[in-house]
Amino acid sequence: MIRKPETLAKKLGLTFSQPQLFSTALTHRSMGAHNNERLEYLGDSVLGFVIAQQLYELFPSAGEGALSRLRASLVNQSSLAELARQHNIGDYLILGSGELKSGGFRRDSILSDALEAIMGALLLDQGIDACQQWILVLFADKLAELKADNWNKDPKTRLQELMQAKRKELPVYELVSMAGADHAQTFEVKCSVAISDESCIGTGISRKKAEQAAAEKMLNLLQNKAP
Amino acid sequence: MIRKPETLAKKLGLTFSQPQLFSTALTHRSMGAHNNERLEYLGDSVLGFVIAQQLYELFPSAGEGALSRLRASLVNQSSLAELARQHNIGDYLILGSGELKSGGFRRDSILSDALEAIMGALLLDQGIDACQQWILVLFADKLAELKADNWNKDPKTRLQELMQAKRKELPVYELVSMAGADHAQTFEVKCSVAISDESCIGTGISRKKAEQAAAEKMLNLLQNKAP
Repeated sequence: MIRKPETLAKKLGLTFSQPQLFSTALTHRSMGAHNNERLEYLGDSVLGFVIAQQLYELFPSAGEGALSRLRASLVNQSSLAELARQHNIGDYLILGSGELKSGGFRRDSILSDALEAIMGALLLDQGIDACQQWILVLFADKLAELKADNWNKDPKTRLQELMQAKRKELPVYELVSMAGADHAQTFEVKCSVAISDESCIGTGISRKKAEQAAAEKMLNLLQNKAP
Repeated sequence: MIRKPETLAKKLGLTFSQPQLFSTALTHRSMGAHNNERLEYLGDSVLGFVIAQQLYELFPSAGEGALSRLRASLVNQSSLAELARQHNIGDYLILGSGELKSGGFRRDSILSDALEAIMGALLLDQGIDACQQWILVLFADKLAELKADNWNKDPKTRLQELMQAKRKELPVYELVSMAGADHAQTFEVKCSVAISDESCIGTGISRKKAEQAAAEKMLNLLQNKAP
């Protein structure tokens, strides 16, 4: 069964004046030189911008760090792949025979790239306003789910809640070293969690600050490791 | 001497309907909670988008990797600080007394953040079109300097040219190991350069490919180390 790009475009609420842009957005590099990689590059940048601006408006008292974390939680390969699956984008991908056989249409990276490429195609076809509007509709549920009370929790609290959500033992913090004179001490604390073989060292001018720094590093480590 | 934000805005060709946004963009966090960090977050995202779109149009046959490299070469702390210096933005920064004494107005990170914050303020005040236009004027020289013939050179060539530009010895490639049967060999090559104590290992299915991979890693290493 051949699935036409137009059918998907219609389901996504999109009408392209240059339909070939939309077909290109669905075309994986396994099909050859004419593929969606350039559109994905463009889509990635417009997506980052649209979500950044939206979060800026939604969370007027969030600092830069919290805004960046919020964006990373919304815009990442697995969340994009999830959105692509909700809209059955995998069924319409144009893949080379190798990728087709090995199930490329199910792979997170391929799905996520295609979704970003669709955003790039939409930007070229209809400009930033239409593109922004579509992205915000696409992300409406995810944006609504962002709990306003969650974004500014400190790293130790976030790490603890992450472990609880995964039903794992709580993080362990060990004092590794203290150095310096009384009024200018530096503390080193090691943070370990059940789901990572690596531990993280944080430093700070108090034990508490060193623990927070170690927790922050661990959160980053776990985020980078996430599938 | 007190330098007024309005004077700088005028020099930059900007008229704000909400001048307090522009003042905030110039305010470093050393002044307290009301500072430019949120605007910088916003400006960073709009800058990334505007330059990505421009490069997409300027280099129609560049692949995703080349476009990303081009963007990284234009948008980084030192290039932004350079632009900020060209426009004397340091003279107008609003800094706490500690940063003022220690010469914060000369620091790359503070200059670069302020310039991004100005972009964020402009976006909020006048929308994406005006912001895009201003960014493209600001980057006009840098965009013109990008040589169309430079973006798709292979990593070994780029690394060699970088060393020549710095008047240093050429990179050295050493074969570290070969493994596997004849038809499926893997090569490991070490790349060393005079300006880095660290060397980089690349692997590939031919010695040449391993050298290219090692050169690419070295370019990334040097780029991350750049001031």
